Amino acid sequence: MNLVTATDVVSAAAKIAPFIQQTPLLHLPGERLWIKAENRQPTRSFKVRGALNAVGRLAEQGAGHVIAQSSGNHAQAVAYAAGRLGLRVTVVLPDTAPSLKVDAARGLGAEVVVVPPALREVTCTALADHLGAAVVRSDDFDTIAGHAGIGAEIAAELPGVATILVPVCNGGLLAGVAVAAKAANPAITVIGVEPALAADGQASFRAGHRVTWPVEDTYRTVADGLRAPVLGALAWEHIRLHVDDMLTVTEDAIVAAMDLLSAKVGERAEPSGAVTTAAYLTHDLPPGPVAAVLSGGNI
Amino acid sequence: MNLVTATDVVSAAAKIAPFIQQTPLLHLPGERLWIKAENRQPTRSFKVRGALNAVGRLAEQGAGHVIAQSSGNHAQAVAYAAGRLGLRVTVVLPDTAPSLKVDAARGLGAEVVVVPPALREVTCTALADHLGAAVVRSDDFDTIAGHAGIGAEIAAELPGVATILVPVCNGGLLAGVAVAAKAANPAITVIGVEPALAADGQASFRAGHRVTWPVEDTYRTVADGLRAPVLGALAWEHIRLHVDDMLTVTEDAIVAAMDLLSAKVGERAEPSGAVTTAAYLTHDLPPGPVAAVLSGGNI
Repeated sequence: MNLVTATDVVSAAAKIAPFIQQTPLLHLPGERLWIKAENRQPTRSFKVRGALNAVGRLAEQGAGHVIAQSSGNHAQAVAYAAGRLGLRVTVVLPDTAPSLKVDAARGLGAEVVVVPPALREVTCTALADHLGAAVVRSDDFDTIAGHAGIGAEIAAELPGVATILVPVCNGGLLAGVAVAAKAANPAITVIGVEPALAADGQASFRAGHRVTWPVEDTYRTVADGLRAPVLGALAWEHIRLHVDDMLTVTEDAIVAAMDLLSAKVGERAEPSGAVTTAAYLTHDLPPGPVAAVLSGGNI
Repeated sequence: MNLVTATDVVSAAAKIAPFIQQTPLLHLPGERLWIKAENRQPTRSFKVRGALNAVGRLAEQGAGHVIAQSSGNHAQAVAYAAGRLGLRVTVVLPDTAPSLKVDAARGLGAEVVVVPPALREVTCTALADHLGAAVVRSDDFDTIAGHAGIGAEIAAELPGVATILVPVCNGGLLAGVAVAAKAANPAITVIGVEPALAADGQASFRAGHRVTWPVEDTYRTVADGLRAPVLGALAWEHIRLHVDDMLTVTEDAIVAAMDLLSAKVGERAEPSGAVTTAAYLTHDLPPGPVAAVLSGGNI
């Protein structure tokens, strides 16, 4: 399995730079906590980074049409990326997605196909096949390499950073940030954070292999971006090599963190984006500055 | 091309009888007009007849899962038929369909996939391929044979009938009714009726070959069930052999006919179902009793 290296991170960052925001690191007054505000990206989510890198690669390889399936943020990110790069784009959304996300994807120029959740994957594959569209996955090599820029930016902008906290859904964000942070400074502690109600990542980390949780369980958390029942296979290979620990947070702590972020730095975090601040508030962390990735602001 | 015969009509009628309504022929007081009230069928449309016959045939051939695409009534009919016959069913609807129709299909147990109109056909084909589902078309042999029962019933229940008026969308209903009526009595005049704003059928009839109208034109009519831009290939082969004429009606006449049906016989017709009564009101017809097919009541 081909893993992402520091070289891939640099090359991805250069490729996507024209299309993303330079997001700030916001210091929380009175705390040793800095917030990496990825909610300020286009589509209000870090996912444009990976999507731009992945769609850009497919365009270089000759694709004129891309397709993606997701519960919302990945689809929006792919729609945004395809629009910026001039590709036709189709996205497959579950009929449980709020109409806001459906409208947002349409607004970005995507053809939107809405299906029962159980038909998401097969519809994406079938349409890719019949339309000649290239599938953009949320957990492939180029996506991880695109996300990794967040780790490189934190290491560069907060030189003394001791710990980086990263939300965990399918693990692509954590994998990328870990690769980049360790490449910048192997002494940085990189920690994944999940809701206790969707802690398949922590279970995998402890077991030493990927563990799947029942979707009925992971869907209990308010953090709707972190309900994936299992880590991606490629993300896992990076996580097991580069990540130091996995922590969980309660639903109450997530809500408290959202309030704190709004009050102290004026950022509107979605629950999935607030889990890292929740972990800072409720866990003992190594001494030194802590950076928390605020992954998105779609609420 | 294998055409529907009187034998096929009888065999289809027997197969679907347990699942459909025996719809009445309602006399319009003071007129020589009788209304065949197919709006009283399950799903409020004649389309269950063809759908039950087509799905029944596929079930006999071993299908366990069927799929259909339509702007509404056909999808509902296929969902109903599959439910009654115990098959899994997926329907592909355009995102222009009213949410009422989407909900109705779900209520009948269908998995509903909603797509931009341009992706209807490819999504249906792609999912059929990847799910191993059999496609139920609204214009195939078994569908036409199932619809034909309406013509046989009219001829049996109104022995002196001189003229039968039939709405024209893709022509499957007209084709079936014409075959059955002519088999019962070749002297019956069978006439197709369309909105003047979607008169591709009349244009085809006059040209002697199938003529396609731009969808931008056919979508102007209020009769949303009759907007197909061209007759089905198989339906056309029956129409050219068995149909005597094609008439058109104005939008105003359609609305007036809906009002009349409501006032005089208490039936709620959708615009597509009222075109035949509109033709009776605005055209000179051969002498003798006239039967008008009221094809549906979904408004």
